Amino acid sequence: MNSTVFSSGQKAFAVPKPDLKALIDPSSIVVIGASPDPTRIGGRPLAQMRDYGYSGSIYCINPRYREVQGFPCYPDVASLPATPDAALLSVNADAGLDEIERCAALGVKAAIVFSAGFAELGTEEGIARQARLRDIAARTGMAIIGPNCLGVANFNSGAIASFNLFAPQSGSKRAAIVSQSGALAAAIYASASQAGFGISHVVTTGNEACLDLSDFIEYFADAPDIDVVLSYVEQVRDGPRFLAAARRLKRNGKLLVAYKVGRSAKGAEAAQSHTAALAGNDRAYREAFRAAGVIEARNVAELVDISYLHRFAAGTPVGGVGVLSVSGAACVALADEFAEGGHPLPTFDAELQKELRTLVPAYGMVANPVDMTANVVNDDATLPTLVRLVGRSDAVSAIVTCGSANVMRKPWADIARDPERPKKLLITVDTLCNAREEAEASGFAYFNDMTRAARALCAYLSNAKATAEDAHIPPSPAVLSARASLARLKEAGRTALSEVEGKVLLQEIGVDAVADRLVHSPEEAAAAVLALGEPAVLKLVSPDVLHKTEIGGVRLGVVGEAAARAAYDDILASAQRLAPDARIDGISVQPYVTDGVEVLVGFTRDPVFGWMVTVGLGGVFTELLGDAETRLAPVSPQVAEEMFRKLKGFALLDGFRGAPKADVAAAAHAVALLSQFAVAAGDLMSEFEINPLLVRPKGALAADAVVVLSPEN
Amino acid sequence: MNSTVFSSGQKAFAVPKPDLKALIDPSSIVVIGASPDPTRIGGRPLAQMRDYGYSGSIYCINPRYREVQGFPCYPDVASLPATPDAALLSVNADAGLDEIERCAALGVKAAIVFSAGFAELGTEEGIARQARLRDIAARTGMAIIGPNCLGVANFNSGAIASFNLFAPQSGSKRAAIVSQSGALAAAIYASASQAGFGISHVVTTGNEACLDLSDFIEYFADAPDIDVVLSYVEQVRDGPRFLAAARRLKRNGKLLVAYKVGRSAKGAEAAQSHTAALAGNDRAYREAFRAAGVIEARNVAELVDISYLHRFAAGTPVGGVGVLSVSGAACVALADEFAEGGHPLPTFDAELQKELRTLVPAYGMVANPVDMTANVVNDDATLPTLVRLVGRSDAVSAIVTCGSANVMRKPWADIARDPERPKKLLITVDTLCNAREEAEASGFAYFNDMTRAARALCAYLSNAKATAEDAHIPPSPAVLSARASLARLKEAGRTALSEVEGKVLLQEIGVDAVADRLVHSPEEAAAAVLALGEPAVLKLVSPDVLHKTEIGGVRLGVVGEAAARAAYDDILASAQRLAPDARIDGISVQPYVTDGVEVLVGFTRDPVFGWMVTVGLGGVFTELLGDAETRLAPVSPQVAEEMFRKLKGFALLDGFRGAPKADVAAAAHAVALLSQFAVAAGDLMSEFEINPLLVRPKGALAADAVVVLSPEN
Repeated sequence: MNSTVFSSGQKAFAVPKPDLKALIDPSSIVVIGASPDPTRIGGRPLAQMRDYGYSGSIYCINPRYREVQGFPCYPDVASLPATPDAALLSVNADAGLDEIERCAALGVKAAIVFSAGFAELGTEEGIARQARLRDIAARTGMAIIGPNCLGVANFNSGAIASFNLFAPQSGSKRAAIVSQSGALAAAIYASASQAGFGISHVVTTGNEACLDLSDFIEYFADAPDIDVVLSYVEQVRDGPRFLAAARRLKRNGKLLVAYKVGRSAKGAEAAQSHTAALAGNDRAYREAFRAAGVIEARNVAELVDISYLHRFAAGTPVGGVGVLSVSGAACVALADEFAEGGHPLPTFDAELQKELRTLVPAYGMVANPVDMTANVVNDDATLPTLVRLVGRSDAVSAIVTCGSANVMRKPWADIARDPERPKKLLITVDTLCNAREEAEASGFAYFNDMTRAARALCAYLSNAKATAEDAHIPPSPAVLSARASLARLKEAGRTALSEVEGKVLLQEIGVDAVADRLVHSPEEAAAAVLALGEPAVLKLVSPDVLHKTEIGGVRLGVVGEAAARAAYDDILASAQRLAPDARIDGISVQPYVTDGVEVLVGFTRDPVFGWMVTVGLGGVFTELLGDAETRLAPVSPQVAEEMFRKLKGFALLDGFRGAPKADVAAAAHAVALLSQFAVAAGDLMSEFEINPLLVRPKGALAADAVVVLSPEN
Repeated sequence: MNSTVFSSGQKAFAVPKPDLKALIDPSSIVVIGASPDPTRIGGRPLAQMRDYGYSGSIYCINPRYREVQGFPCYPDVASLPATPDAALLSVNADAGLDEIERCAALGVKAAIVFSAGFAELGTEEGIARQARLRDIAARTGMAIIGPNCLGVANFNSGAIASFNLFAPQSGSKRAAIVSQSGALAAAIYASASQAGFGISHVVTTGNEACLDLSDFIEYFADAPDIDVVLSYVEQVRDGPRFLAAARRLKRNGKLLVAYKVGRSAKGAEAAQSHTAALAGNDRAYREAFRAAGVIEARNVAELVDISYLHRFAAGTPVGGVGVLSVSGAACVALADEFAEGGHPLPTFDAELQKELRTLVPAYGMVANPVDMTANVVNDDATLPTLVRLVGRSDAVSAIVTCGSANVMRKPWADIARDPERPKKLLITVDTLCNAREEAEASGFAYFNDMTRAARALCAYLSNAKATAEDAHIPPSPAVLSARASLARLKEAGRTALSEVEGKVLLQEIGVDAVADRLVHSPEEAAAAVLALGEPAVLKLVSPDVLHKTEIGGVRLGVVGEAAARAAYDDILASAQRLAPDARIDGISVQPYVTDGVEVLVGFTRDPVFGWMVTVGLGGVFTELLGDAETRLAPVSPQVAEEMFRKLKGFALLDGFRGAPKADVAAAAHAVALLSQFAVAAGDLMSEFEINPLLVRPKGALAADAVVVLSPEN
């Protein structure tokens, strides 16, 4: 847990670490603004704590009563007989601030602030109130959640410090909702109830004046009673802190599933208006989630379903899905769903198909999906045997059985008792009747909708895949040395590197670059062509000419001294004729590389998560078709290679129309090094792009590099 | 209704038209193989007919009983006191065939055949049985559904001739399920129950030996008690008949929503194995649905949700969606869902925003989505006023309100009573509690999941859009004349057209083509260059040379007689050197068009639905990136233009990097004419492609055409 309650960029004070346990699992609570009416905001928490059997002490503060809903009531916090762990504030903003001061003075460790009227108003007054709240937290180390939040509910202890009405749930409860919206927290809870998935904690963070999303993820990472966190995310305030919290949670064998809105242009616009958050790039969120092993859900139902699946997981699933159904139609529908979810069903090998065929009639299917046909009803042993056989396949990490509970009930129980039962994720889809308890008791995740089952499982499997690729990448000595070089250039007052300097930097990092010599006479040009290798390219170098070819500023395939001299003169003459005012720095001579496929390697710095790396094929592919892949930097060579392979135009690198295959491994190695460098350089740079990187049959060469140093810092 | 029970390709007999009313709405039923056990297949229909209050006569056939479940029972059909409308067969396949013969002899009009053991087995015996069943239908005109089906259920009359167990539903029921899978019909019915959507009829077509999907769609097109048909589709047996039935249904103001599986490669493979259907192209289904105004659902839940929405539709929605929510987070989430569903929320105009702002606090949003903020709870009149204001906008054809029923209950009722209530599709999303009846009674479609509401609405709106474009396109006289020319060439024994003949055909259709002259001497080449216009292109014409450039077979930009002669000689010399064995037909001279963007216009003939037209940009765009748009032919120029505009690479036609804009309207006009021609040519042709069509700043020119005549016919 971080040692201060501040976001990055704030100075740290030596204050006690906020005690989140006192907030989430308090042993006593005082409700300030308690109401005897159980339907009112100040009355609901009391009624719910009674209903949910909270065993801690509850005190009320309200000068008008001596007792509220059966709990002792006091005129003010000073009159309390003991110091409660947490204070719940259901009074107006200004009164609330005064009460929190008093609570802090008493030694109350935590506060839940329902009150609105803070920064969300956008007014000077509201912003000042929020600053005061932060100041109290900073001075006292109090754990303050809100303001403008729906509160915190702990269904394990019954501490429901929330005015949302939570319908009781059955089933085991080891899942926490952490939400930046109260309304969405309520919707997620309701959806979980519908899906029969029990929730143990609900945390709504409101304006996040003091504590934010990452604090609670970090808390639940270490909470022994939690396996999974369902998070509704509008904005992450400190990317690295969020990533650290998410990785910690994952390391502890838990799962974070996040529903992040603002994916579309219109949604991002609305999110911006709603949260006034800094405009983080939505893609950066997606890639940060992937890098930290956070599964992204696309909507509330998926958030619930993916989280629910985790309860039934047996280790990290690394293979595909086997499907067994009593209906051929359901087989086809599920084959579609898994293919569209990025996990096409693997075809079983011939031997397994042969074994399955002994139990499946000729008009059924055995290749996966397995259409067991209605024949399966004739013998209750058929399905358990099929599950056992399919479970032996290494290609399968999850098995989905589909049919009505009438047919499946007996086999579920038999499979549960089978000592040879596969140690794999077992899912059952029963579209007809509700047999959830029976299926779950037999160790099956239960769905009554094929699509929801398939989508949740695909998201779950994608994460397992991403995780297998996740690796900590320390910067190499060469990268650190290149960073030092860049720092020196910056200290010397440089704002950007020339093409030549850029290539030197790349070579220091360990990335090959096309040799390049700036010449100033026909003779120098001839010598350069001989020295660098023929054929050569000659290019005009001018800060004023953007499109060199348009003014005859480029000659390709120059061979021999005479041609070099002529090309030099031609370019200058052409430039003088067509761009008479352009300043000319000279002519650049480079070897003419004709056997490379041009790719671009671009870097952008996300304000929340830092450097992101993008690869794409040159020209219209990236610009027009958006055929590019982006990841949070740094990436390993394995991930970089996967980025190339995911491009729609990858075939151009893979021996298109009889061309030799490009050395994608070399390109990936270069991308990995460049991404490490970007992270090491941090805010030294503001722009970084290699375009093009020429990927040749053997090796990859940077032909140009843009490095712009950041102005501030 | 078609006059025979046969699929196309079968000869028609003069038999009575099958009476589908006797099948779906029988006034009396005989259950052959009736069982006293209400849990058995032969017992369930009886139990359900009693429970659902069927008022028609029910007879049982079973030699062992005089009475079954309270209904009179006879040893055989000959003993029946009256001739029932329909016979339900719950006996084995061979016995069933004999019984159907007897029923037909008695004058029974319809038969529902549960029995399996027919063509689905894939055995000779099964296929022979199915042939016999078809023969009975053909001879007698009996309306026979199945075999191997779950039967037919009519919840309006209580005629439940099905062995599926249907849980009773409440609510109005004007929706029929027509399904090619029994299991899926049951799943759709269960999903509709869960969503509170009442189903009036379930029809499962089984092996479709006699009657198929299209017969029932056609029946429901004219059924007065049905507004919407929910169809699970595995295969359409006769494309034109399906399209005609779907269009008839649509013309009658009804909606057909179809869930078609086999979308993915893996799914199509499974579908093929499951149905042994002819391998129809999945894309052809999608485009046929679009052309006939069938809404495609992607899964069972969507099938139900889209159908449900139709109940609340007020005319054809042609605009976008307005969103009003009490939660900013829900606003953002819905903005994402609608954007991703292809219907980004339109931004309200400044005047409307100003009006809304009088009711929405400064920290809410008014541009659409409208974040009313929790403030809306303070005055019950706020939401009705906001709905009325938003409803006045022409940009809006559907309004989605989102909030808990606690907040919305009173406004729903007030809106229902409001005489100025917008005549638009009203939807409410209540993620928390179940207030379906109240919302529906006030005229709101009710959802408790934002994503499901948005996805259904997007699909519903897409269809309205597609329909607005739908138009009957009769072939022009020029197209018919070109068809006659092609028929003459075919009669003359031709198998394919040369490039020159192809271009002549295009010109007859009304599509411009690049002029083209085949020359056989340097002098002819020079004359052709002068005649056709400079600069020119000279190309080798040889049946043996696929890639002309590789052997120096192309000269671009030829200007002047001397250059023309030289180019002619060069090409021949080069060809003789590099491809000495190639047969040479001559050299083709064409004007060198450099100001056109190359597109391809391709045609494929789907075995089910006929000619499909595809447009794409040339080269890697189509081949590598799959950036192409396909529609069922014929298309109007409007639809053709939309196809171009939907290409990811459309910018290349739209003035990319300072180039002049290409004449997309001319290209679209050409595509429309070509698509009419393909339809008119029908099975005269087997291949048809224009590649490239050069889209110039003014006009579009075909530079090459492939026309292959079909071998058979």
